[in-house]
Amino acid sequence: MCGIVGIVGKSNVNVALYDALTMLQHRGQDAAGIMTCHKGKLAQQKAVGLVKDVFRTRHMQRLEGNMGIGHVRYPTAGSSGPALAQPFYVNSPYGIALAHNGNLTNTEQLRKDLFLSDLRHINTESDSEVLLNVLAHEIQEQGKLRPTPEDIFKAVAGVNKRARGGYAVVALLSNYGVLAFRDPNGIRPLVFGVRETEKGQEYMIASESVALDVLGFKLIRDVAPGEAIYITTDGEFHSLQCADNPRLSPCIFEHVYFARPDSIMDGVSVYKARLRQGEKLAEKILSLRPDHDIDVVIPIPDSSRVAGQAMAHNLGVKFREGLVKNRYIGRTFIMPGQKLRKKSVRQKLNPIDLEFRGKNVLLVDDSIVRGTTCQQIIQMARDAGANKVYFASAAPAVKYPNVYGIDMPSVDELIAHGRTDDEIAKEIGADWLIYQDLEDLIAASGEGNPNVPKFDCAVFDGKYVTGDVDEAYLERLDAARNDSAQTLDSVGDDAMMGIHNS
Amino acid sequence: MCGIVGIVGKSNVNVALYDALTMLQHRGQDAAGIMTCHKGKLAQQKAVGLVKDVFRTRHMQRLEGNMGIGHVRYPTAGSSGPALAQPFYVNSPYGIALAHNGNLTNTEQLRKDLFLSDLRHINTESDSEVLLNVLAHEIQEQGKLRPTPEDIFKAVAGVNKRARGGYAVVALLSNYGVLAFRDPNGIRPLVFGVRETEKGQEYMIASESVALDVLGFKLIRDVAPGEAIYITTDGEFHSLQCADNPRLSPCIFEHVYFARPDSIMDGVSVYKARLRQGEKLAEKILSLRPDHDIDVVIPIPDSSRVAGQAMAHNLGVKFREGLVKNRYIGRTFIMPGQKLRKKSVRQKLNPIDLEFRGKNVLLVDDSIVRGTTCQQIIQMARDAGANKVYFASAAPAVKYPNVYGIDMPSVDELIAHGRTDDEIAKEIGADWLIYQDLEDLIAASGEGNPNVPKFDCAVFDGKYVTGDVDEAYLERLDAARNDSAQTLDSVGDDAMMGIHNS
Amino acid sequence: MCGIVGIVGKSNVNVALYDALTMLQHRGQDAAGIMTCHKGKLAQQKAVGLVKDVFRTRHMQRLEGNMGIGHVRYPTAGSSGPALAQPFYVNSPYGIALAHNGNLTNTEQLRKDLFLSDLRHINTESDSEVLLNVLAHEIQEQGKLRPTPEDIFKAVAGVNKRARGGYAVVALLSNYGVLAFRDPNGIRPLVFGVRETEKGQEYMIASESVALDVLGFKLIRDVAPGEAIYITTDGEFHSLQCADNPRLSPCIFEHVYFARPDSIMDGVSVYKARLRQGEKLAEKILSLRPDHDIDVVIPIPDSSRVAGQAMAHNLGVKFREGLVKNRYIGRTFIMPGQKLRKKSVRQKLNPIDLEFRGKNVLLVDDSIVRGTTCQQIIQMARDAGANKVYFASAAPAVKYPNVYGIDMPSVDELIAHGRTDDEIAKEIGADWLIYQDLEDLIAASGEGNPNVPKFDCAVFDGKYVTGDVDEAYLERLDAARNDSAQTLDSVGDDAMMGIHNS
Amino acid sequence: MCGIVGIVGKSNVNVALYDALTMLQHRGQDAAGIMTCHKGKLAQQKAVGLVKDVFRTRHMQRLEGNMGIGHVRYPTAGSSGPALAQPFYVNSPYGIALAHNGNLTNTEQLRKDLFLSDLRHINTESDSEVLLNVLAHEIQEQGKLRPTPEDIFKAVAGVNKRARGGYAVVALLSNYGVLAFRDPNGIRPLVFGVRETEKGQEYMIASESVALDVLGFKLIRDVAPGEAIYITTDGEFHSLQCADNPRLSPCIFEHVYFARPDSIMDGVSVYKARLRQGEKLAEKILSLRPDHDIDVVIPIPDSSRVAGQAMAHNLGVKFREGLVKNRYIGRTFIMPGQKLRKKSVRQKLNPIDLEFRGKNVLLVDDSIVRGTTCQQIIQMARDAGANKVYFASAAPAVKYPNVYGIDMPSVDELIAHGRTDDEIAKEIGADWLIYQDLEDLIAASGEGNPNVPKFDCAVFDGKYVTGDVDEAYLERLDAARNDSAQTLDSVGDDAMMGIHNS
Repeated sequence: MCGIVGIVGKSNVNVALYDALTMLQHRGQDAAGIMTCHKGKLAQQKAVGLVKDVFRTRHMQRLEGNMGIGHVRYPTAGSSGPALAQPFYVNSPYGIALAHNGNLTNTEQLRKDLFLSDLRHINTESDSEVLLNVLAHEIQEQGKLRPTPEDIFKAVAGVNKRARGGYAVVALLSNYGVLAFRDPNGIRPLVFGVRETEKGQEYMIASESVALDVLGFKLIRDVAPGEAIYITTDGEFHSLQCADNPRLSPCIFEHVYFARPDSIMDGVSVYKARLRQGEKLAEKILSLRPDHDIDVVIPIPDSSRVAGQAMAHNLGVKFREGLVKNRYIGRTFIMPGQKLRKKSVRQKLNPIDLEFRGKNVLLVDDSIVRGTTCQQIIQMARDAGANKVYFASAAPAVKYPNVYGIDMPSVDELIAHGRTDDEIAKEIGADWLIYQDLEDLIAASGEGNPNVPKFDCAVFDGKYVTGDVDEAYLERLDAARNDSAQTLDSVGDDAMMGIHNS
Repeated sequence: MCGIVGIVGKSNVNVALYDALTMLQHRGQDAAGIMTCHKGKLAQQKAVGLVKDVFRTRHMQRLEGNMGIGHVRYPTAGSSGPALAQPFYVNSPYGIALAHNGNLTNTEQLRKDLFLSDLRHINTESDSEVLLNVLAHEIQEQGKLRPTPEDIFKAVAGVNKRARGGYAVVALLSNYGVLAFRDPNGIRPLVFGVRETEKGQEYMIASESVALDVLGFKLIRDVAPGEAIYITTDGEFHSLQCADNPRLSPCIFEHVYFARPDSIMDGVSVYKARLRQGEKLAEKILSLRPDHDIDVVIPIPDSSRVAGQAMAHNLGVKFREGLVKNRYIGRTFIMPGQKLRKKSVRQKLNPIDLEFRGKNVLLVDDSIVRGTTCQQIIQMARDAGANKVYFASAAPAVKYPNVYGIDMPSVDELIAHGRTDDEIAKEIGADWLIYQDLEDLIAASGEGNPNVPKFDCAVFDGKYVTGDVDEAYLERLDAARNDSAQTLDSVGDDAMMGIHNS
Repeated sequence: MCGIVGIVGKSNVNVALYDALTMLQHRGQDAAGIMTCHKGKLAQQKAVGLVKDVFRTRHMQRLEGNMGIGHVRYPTAGSSGPALAQPFYVNSPYGIALAHNGNLTNTEQLRKDLFLSDLRHINTESDSEVLLNVLAHEIQEQGKLRPTPEDIFKAVAGVNKRARGGYAVVALLSNYGVLAFRDPNGIRPLVFGVRETEKGQEYMIASESVALDVLGFKLIRDVAPGEAIYITTDGEFHSLQCADNPRLSPCIFEHVYFARPDSIMDGVSVYKARLRQGEKLAEKILSLRPDHDIDVVIPIPDSSRVAGQAMAHNLGVKFREGLVKNRYIGRTFIMPGQKLRKKSVRQKLNPIDLEFRGKNVLLVDDSIVRGTTCQQIIQMARDAGANKVYFASAAPAVKYPNVYGIDMPSVDELIAHGRTDDEIAKEIGADWLIYQDLEDLIAASGEGNPNVPKFDCAVFDGKYVTGDVDEAYLERLDAARNDSAQTLDSVGDDAMMGIHNS
Repeated sequence: MCGIVGIVGKSNVNVALYDALTMLQHRGQDAAGIMTCHKGKLAQQKAVGLVKDVFRTRHMQRLEGNMGIGHVRYPTAGSSGPALAQPFYVNSPYGIALAHNGNLTNTEQLRKDLFLSDLRHINTESDSEVLLNVLAHEIQEQGKLRPTPEDIFKAVAGVNKRARGGYAVVALLSNYGVLAFRDPNGIRPLVFGVRETEKGQEYMIASESVALDVLGFKLIRDVAPGEAIYITTDGEFHSLQCADNPRLSPCIFEHVYFARPDSIMDGVSVYKARLRQGEKLAEKILSLRPDHDIDVVIPIPDSSRVAGQAMAHNLGVKFREGLVKNRYIGRTFIMPGQKLRKKSVRQKLNPIDLEFRGKNVLLVDDSIVRGTTCQQIIQMARDAGANKVYFASAAPAVKYPNVYGIDMPSVDELIAHGRTDDEIAKEIGADWLIYQDLEDLIAASGEGNPNVPKFDCAVFDGKYVTGDVDEAYLERLDAARNDSAQTLDSVGDDAMMGIHNS
């Protein structure tokens, strides 16, 4: 997962981009980057690290210009490191920079096509670099010395025809403007808004509405699936539907875990969706065990607290923050003569024993992926004196990989892969395990906006909305994942630093 | 406020000290330091910054030794900067390092005495450097080539006679052991515990029990007021009451705001104390307005969430996390040609409008100090569409300065100074303001351990338990505070870096 | 001036490139960069600073591959800063990186042509980025999926037709090989050599032969003017004359000042050339003043020491190192309340008074550009008690700008611009000023290799060998120079950091 | 070897101390430090690295005050690393900082005495920390709240009675003044001078006169052996002979190698001494081989160039700089899968083959220590085509360790240890080896100032002027040397960083 932002303003946009990236930091803490355009020249700063560490005053000083784009990235298997920090850049045509949230499913084919048609060299494994070159190629095909919005939209239509997968994109065309578009299924989120200033209107495009809120931009709406919007350097706004059969199918995992609760995505309040997740889970518990003996609901902080509060309320039992999250996490040192200590869950979460001792506790988490953390927390609850330990997941069992930009472990590492709920309960050591039903999860989100026809729920049901993901694809993915994980191991954290742009 | 830790172990203690400081990081984010002793030589690393940034692998490698102490510091007016990072050090006698949480109220007199008696030069404004030299002087007075525990305890008794104020201290005596003591009123917290290892028992002393928990140390008890404990380098444990009239009077503000909820201090669970704060506040509201029209309780994250949950539960209204805290905060850049943007509360907290719109909301905070943040949050609530905005403080009105180690603004800046509750409500823009009653706050803490005879509540009632704080003292304090604030302004963040030890 | 290097080896070339750049560091201390190619992917590290500071172990680890190129750059007016560090990169066609020593005289026209023909965006003011794009365009014109050496040489012929000025170039073609070429006048130096290893032959191309010497490469010969050499990734060597009317006219200033004395350039030993400069200057002095009263020859270290020794020997007077160069130079601090101290010549050179007192001294420098340093040194000699102070320049009067890559001040700042020798002597305060005659300078170099038909001596005689440099060009140059100098002033040292590649 | 400086000025002395340390940088490149005193508080910055890297603007800003001291240190076996950077500090009495050039020969005894008398803990292996504590003890013995110059001088007399070895010292007494003194044999150099400013006279004390020259201080004289000078914070100058039997015996190795040629030490011009070394060596050659067949004298840069010029002149043969020193040296990378390359002499020196081919060359160096470099250079000369290779050393054979502050390898590693001149010649591969005679070396220095009664020549003749250095001492030294070298190896460069002060 990543966060993206683009602004066309009336004065330098560097600080606004910085603040917006800070608001989107939860979407990716691996690397951050900004490119701006000033008098036809592009300036750039990107590096591994948090936004607050990547940008220093000296960088901000050269990030001049009234338009620019930014990116925060989430590390994924085989794709961490500075070489992959975005935005990416090509100098032909015009000078184009691009930042991307999502994942293409036909990257390899596109890479080959690009070389055959244009002799374009792709220097990294990043699908974003490929997407940029596809866009660049499509724009170049228009053959204009000075591209019109129509040229740009034709190029996006070309991209939509060739690219498969989930993508939300912002691109900066040197001298000309900022472009944004979203794949025909609208899998990844993208919103835009406007702010009035003394010098005129300023536009911002961002992955989540919270970035607009905090900077004083008024949310206009989501970018529609398949739609492109283009704001020229003068602030003229253009938009066009650039896909043949657009159909909104946003990723439901954003509501489960990824998005900030105060964001509104495709018309759905994430916070409300999480409250409803808790309510529906409570209903399920009450219908399965009307006479349950739960004494207290304890959330696993932070993402499940909202659902947990709703659950406790509807179950009529106490809600207690019995697990305290350590906000400060230290690094693990490898000292000569000392055994490598694995940082235990205990260093991230500390139980308040009084809330566990002698009680039947219901732990709530947003979802269960590998299950190893669950297991440790359940043990921690028992060590703290809990009588019975129940475990509820606000999402259904995660059984399939995500191919649209969320990093998930290999299928074999998913605890729900090939196990029944009872087997999972046994594995994690819970006295009872309750998963949200998929229809309930969909309803929790769908009630927020009845106009969303469909959600991408592939991690739960294995149905991939782009239609091109088959068994063979998933096996290649798994193999590649394992390969690159090994490579990463052998070269170390900092070894992938490569070409900064292309 | 600061956090301190000391360990006498059976192998290198550097990593354990690091992890403990990480757990105490909430007590101070300005600077951190560790000193260890190995074969009679002391090693040190201290710097401005978070624990995770101050200590790198190369530092850990030279922090060898089976015993050591650590410190995290909170910046206070006039005392920020690297020169003031602790532990402090003197080479005579023996080589002694010291780390301190608290504040002395007779620093100036002690400083003069030290020069007259010993020609000891104090190079910083830190009372901790003074305290170290008083201790060093008292130990030197014993005149031993090799000090016994009795010598050490006599020296502590001497310190207790001369020093005034609140102090919890750990000290490292090169070659000999780790000493810890707490002032005769036990104002600042200090606990100790033990861990069994294959090589034998290891002792840890720390500001809060949570540090012990997470590292697998079993809490033995709090250090008693006036008591000293001394663990020799071989692991022998000694303790003695070293004050004439010890009387436990712990600082109640630890329970209100400072301590981690999962800590137990002087027998009181901080989490439980906060729950009771919420319950008592709910009672007060119900007694004042039995027919209140509160629709929802919204806490101001993070510290008031526990009290807020109890309140909502006892009031029988919904609890909603309607204010989302930004976990990532960016820096403020001063760009040429741009106006200095004050980072607004909005960049720290974002409201979920749906939870405010058309509702009567009760905002809860742990306390109100300056009132400026309250005011902005209340305005934010109104902007989000709230109907009525009530405001509850889990602590009584803060009216007096703290002189025992908690940094507070000048009295004139305290919103409750010279104002009635109604005037404060008007000032912050609340439709109703409810303060906790002091007796309720004391009860909320006292119910946790009836054996605590008294709490230091000076910031609420102006009664200073050490008996030496008068009007004249407070005036000097205020004047010094203003002076140093100005100095700090003129020289910048990094300007105070000075002698690392003395 | 800059230094360039390229290697096609049989194992990783990163360390060899690093060592070669260290040997070429005297040609540019502003920035350094390396790009290597490994399995079709390019890796890069470039930054402002000395070679020893730019490359750390972590960078070297990712600079994998058996072929690569490197660059050290000299800061020139308006073109300092990280954005201009080389090599530069374009991803179409193939992925090409380029590093360049020299200067194009028709940059603006080429930049326009590139946009019109290819929509290629040039993001910096660097003529090297332009040259790279011209090369990329010419290669793309060949339209091959896999280019042959013939295709490459055709492209270089195209470059030679379009580009004007002085250029020595190394380029890295991803997957294919390393290319090097030199402009049709061979203004800037370029040599190549070979090293036998167990795995086979390795080739190195470099600005100066000293880089080959030290790394154990045997010098084969200079790249001829207009010639291109191309070594494929497998180590196949190809070369071809790619210019219509090549004519060797190397820059004589390399022999005066720039090159290392132990280099051999176009068959001329730089050390020997400098000895001959001294001999000829001595002859001139003896013929002008057969009864001169010179007591001692004192060189201005380091570059004039060799000429000085020959002069002293032939004049029959003592040679004394009476000026000691400070090898360590500190920075200039701007302290509040203190006047800005200009680092005087005194902090770079310290006189040994005994060698000056009461003597008639002949100071020797390699050349006189602005004259300000001369003036200060002459004053220093007088302060040290010199009786008469004579001044000899091993080169003729510098009267014209260099347009082929050597940074010179504006014409108006050249002390010899519009002044007679006597006026210059008066200006710098010398009792007698002796310039080398141009024919003597040419002879000093030419005697080293009678086959060099001509030297570029434009800074002395204003005759520019490329034939396209007229009064209008020089005026534009001067204006641009003044503009960019002002820009640099306003933004500070670090402000130009921009796109790392394009 | 180290460099020291102290200044009592009329405004902030930070920049002057910085510039002086830059001038003394040749005396030590391992670490640098400055302490200043402002309004009774000390400020400090010290770290490993060159002066230009250790001090940044932020450090300079807090190094306020009109008086201060500075130090550059040379790494010695077992004593490298940040923990040993000077100045050192003790807070009792008064607050004293000290920086030292030299070495004590009775460190261990002093360390024990300090603990017994004062319980003073010495935290490092540095004899400078011991010396500081001895001084502190002696000052404290005077028992004054405010010390007079007489008290200070009495204390120095006490130090001179207790300490053995060579020491030149500057010390900063907080609030009171700057003290400097030199051991009773005056082994290490120390000079002082004065500068007139608008606000009054400023004093500087420094290891070499060149620091005074460049900063505009007028040299007054050398500090006499056993003398102390004390300049109060107001600028009052005091001096007194504080030793019983002072006798000047300066270290002759300063003239051979260590000092800058433009310094004057104990009345001797280092440059002139080196010229005379060359002249005397020429005489010796002419007397031994009146018909020598030397074609050319080639110095090994930089330190032997002056002697070489004199030799060539007196021998009547050509002087040629046939070995070019690389001013830029890169680091050695340890790459996985590559053999560790030892940086060869070739990367430091490159021969100009033309100057060697077919000639009988006389190489000149200042001295021969291990002989390994000689050997490689002689081989290099042969590879370059030399006919015969003769080698001259401007100093006699180095046969004994230095115990007064110059780091030398273990005796066993000295090539002259246990070998005749012929054996050495064979070992290094020279066709003829000529050493300076000791009486000639002494004469070369002594002719500069007939008033110097004696030089310390112990590395040549084994006669240690302090009279306390016997066989047993040298054996302990050798053992300790080997031990610490091993320790250093095992812990790495950065591992010794410890207590910054004591």
